[in-house]
Amino acid sequence: MSEDFNPSCPFPIQNYPQVLLAHGGGGKLMQQLIEKMFATAFDPMSKEGLHDSISLNLPGKRIAFTTDSFVVRPLFFPGGDIGTLAVNGTVNDLAMSGARPLYLSLGFILEEGLPMNVLWQVVCSIKKAADTAGVTIVTGDTKVVDKGKGDGIYINTSGIGVIEHSLHIVPSTVKSGDLVIISGDVGRHGMAIIATRESLNFESAIESDCAPLGGLVLQLIKADTEIHCMRDLTRGGLASALNEIACAAHLGIHIEEALVPVREDVAAACAIMGFDPLYVANEGRFVIFVAPQDQAKVLEIMRKHPQGQGACCIGSVQSKSQTNVVMKSKIGANRLLDMISGEQLPRIC
Amino acid sequence: MSEDFNPSCPFPIQNYPQVLLAHGGGGKLMQQLIEKMFATAFDPMSKEGLHDSISLNLPGKRIAFTTDSFVVRPLFFPGGDIGTLAVNGTVNDLAMSGARPLYLSLGFILEEGLPMNVLWQVVCSIKKAADTAGVTIVTGDTKVVDKGKGDGIYINTSGIGVIEHSLHIVPSTVKSGDLVIISGDVGRHGMAIIATRESLNFESAIESDCAPLGGLVLQLIKADTEIHCMRDLTRGGLASALNEIACAAHLGIHIEEALVPVREDVAAACAIMGFDPLYVANEGRFVIFVAPQDQAKVLEIMRKHPQGQGACCIGSVQSKSQTNVVMKSKIGANRLLDMISGEQLPRIC
Repeated sequence: MSEDFNPSCPFPIQNYPQVLLAHGGGGKLMQQLIEKMFATAFDPMSKEGLHDSISLNLPGKRIAFTTDSFVVRPLFFPGGDIGTLAVNGTVNDLAMSGARPLYLSLGFILEEGLPMNVLWQVVCSIKKAADTAGVTIVTGDTKVVDKGKGDGIYINTSGIGVIEHSLHIVPSTVKSGDLVIISGDVGRHGMAIIATRESLNFESAIESDCAPLGGLVLQLIKADTEIHCMRDLTRGGLASALNEIACAAHLGIHIEEALVPVREDVAAACAIMGFDPLYVANEGRFVIFVAPQDQAKVLEIMRKHPQGQGACCIGSVQSKSQTNVVMKSKIGANRLLDMISGEQLPRIC
Repeated sequence: MSEDFNPSCPFPIQNYPQVLLAHGGGGKLMQQLIEKMFATAFDPMSKEGLHDSISLNLPGKRIAFTTDSFVVRPLFFPGGDIGTLAVNGTVNDLAMSGARPLYLSLGFILEEGLPMNVLWQVVCSIKKAADTAGVTIVTGDTKVVDKGKGDGIYINTSGIGVIEHSLHIVPSTVKSGDLVIISGDVGRHGMAIIATRESLNFESAIESDCAPLGGLVLQLIKADTEIHCMRDLTRGGLASALNEIACAAHLGIHIEEALVPVREDVAAACAIMGFDPLYVANEGRFVIFVAPQDQAKVLEIMRKHPQGQGACCIGSVQSKSQTNVVMKSKIGANRLLDMISGEQLPRIC
C-alpha cells in the first residue's frame, strides 16, 4: 500500500511498540511522536514549528470546506486502508463541489495499545495518498483514548479546496432532462470490506475502488461542460446518492438497472451475502448530472481518465411531478429505488 | 449550559431514545438525524441542501487552518461540556495565530447506545458556544461505532480563520527581552475534570475556564501591539507551552512562580491530588510574548476584557545561551521547569 513512501520509521518503535496514553498527553512522548513520525511524513507540520494552527495563502477567496471521520473496520483491506480512505474521502467531497483540493487536516483518535507499526503503516498510506491526490497535510491533532474505548485508529480529515470557476455545483441546479452519468462499476469498496471482515475467500479478492476524483473533475470543468451536480457514491451507495439529490432538487430520477455497471465477481458476492450492489458503498465512484448536449463530451473525457474508464449514462432527470428514484429493472418492470431505512453495512468508511 | 439555545428537539427522541448504528449508515435514519437535529441547530448546513462540502466566500486569501479532536471524559463538567470545549478549543487555536475565527466543521463519532438527549444537549452547547465565539458551523459528518468501541461522543472540529494583519505570530519571532504575559489564573479546567471524574466534593465546585479567546486577541492586534507569539495553555499546561516555545525559538524563558496566578481552591485541590498546577490543562488561558515597550498597553487591554481580567507578566525571554524554562520558586531557588514526560491526566480535552 505504501510503495512510494515507506522509509524506515524515524520514531523509535522498538522503545514504544504500542501507543500509550501519554502519546496524547501533551508532554515529551507526544512531542516525540509528532516530531519523529508525523512531521517526517508531512513536511509543512514541521516548518512552522508545530504551532496551534497553520497560516496558508490561498490562490483564491472562493473555497470549498468539508470534514469526514473514518471508522472503517478492518483498518486494512484489499485496495487500501483507513489512511487512503481518509485522504480520498475528503478529497472527493471537495471535488464534488468542483473545487481543486489543496489542504487537509489530520486528526487521529488512537486506542491505547495500538501497535506503533500499524500507525506508521497508516501514516505512510496517508502520505502516499495525499501525494497522489495532489493535496498537502498541513495541520494535525493526536488524541489517545483508553484501551476498550476505541478501535485501533479513528481518523478525521477536513479539507480546503479552491473553486476556480463560476459554476454552482449543487443539487438545486439539477434540471429536468439532465442526464445521469456514472463513472464506473459500483459495489466494490463495500464488498471488499465485508469480505475481509468476514474472512470470506472469494475466488479473486475484490479490491476497493478507493481513489481520488479531483483530477478527473477538474478536467471536466476545464472542458466547459455544463455540470449541474456531482455526488460520490459512499455510504448508502448509488441508490442513496440519487435519492438525496432527487429530494434536494425536488425532481424525479429514472435509471435503468441494465445500464448500471456491476462487476461479475461483485454481483456474485452481493448475491451470496444478500446485498444489493446499488446500496453498497464505493470510495472512487461518482455520478454527474449534466445537460444532455454535453453527454458525448463528458463521456469522452471520463473514459480517457483512470477514474472514469467505465463511465456510462444510466438514466435521466424527469419532470417535477415526482420526487423519487425509479429504476427500470432488467426484466422491464419499474421499481421504486427507495433510500435504505436501516443499516446495510456499518463502519464501511 | 445551553440557556440561550435550547428549544425542544425537533428530532423525535421518543422514537429513537438511543443512537443506533443506522444513524451513521447513510440511509433514512441518518438523514433524519441530520435534518431534524443538526440542520435545526446549524442553519448553513441546511441551506446548501446537505452537499458533500460547503462553498464559502472568504474575506481574504490569508487564512489560518487547524483541527482538534475532543475525547474528554466525562462529557459534562462544571463550566462546560465536550461541546463548548470542541468549539472553544478550535477557536482558540485559530486565535493563537492572530486569525479571526470564522468557520468550523463538526465531526461526530458516536457510540451506539448513546442517549439521544445527551447528543441534543451537546448540540445545543455547540450552537451556543459558536454563537458566543462568533463562528459558524458550516459542514459536518456523523459516524456511529459499535457499543464498546467508543465512549459516548468524540468530536472533531476543524476551523478556518482569516488573518487580517501583517504580523507573523509564530514561535520563531520570539526575541530575547520579550515579556511573557499570562491571561489569568491556571489549572481550573484540569481540576474541574478530575474532580468530576473522581466524584470529589470540594467545598466549592471548581469550574472550567473554557472560553473563546478570539475577541481579546483581535483587540490586541487592532491596538498595534508588537505580539511575537501566543499559545493557549491546554494539554500539558503552562509548563509545556513555555517549553514548546523555548525549544522552537531556541531561547530560554525565565518565569517567577510567585507571579503565576493560581486560585486558592485550585491550589488546594492540586495539593490534595498531587498535581502541579503549572502542568494542568486550561481551555481559556494563554500566554503572549510581547516586546517590552508594549507591556503596559497589552495589560491594559487584557484586564478590561472578560478573558484577560487576571492578566499579568510572569517572566521574560533570556539570551540565546539556554534553550529551557527556568522558574524562580517562591522560596527563591531556580528550578528547571521541564516538559512532562509521562501522562499527568489523560482525556482532559
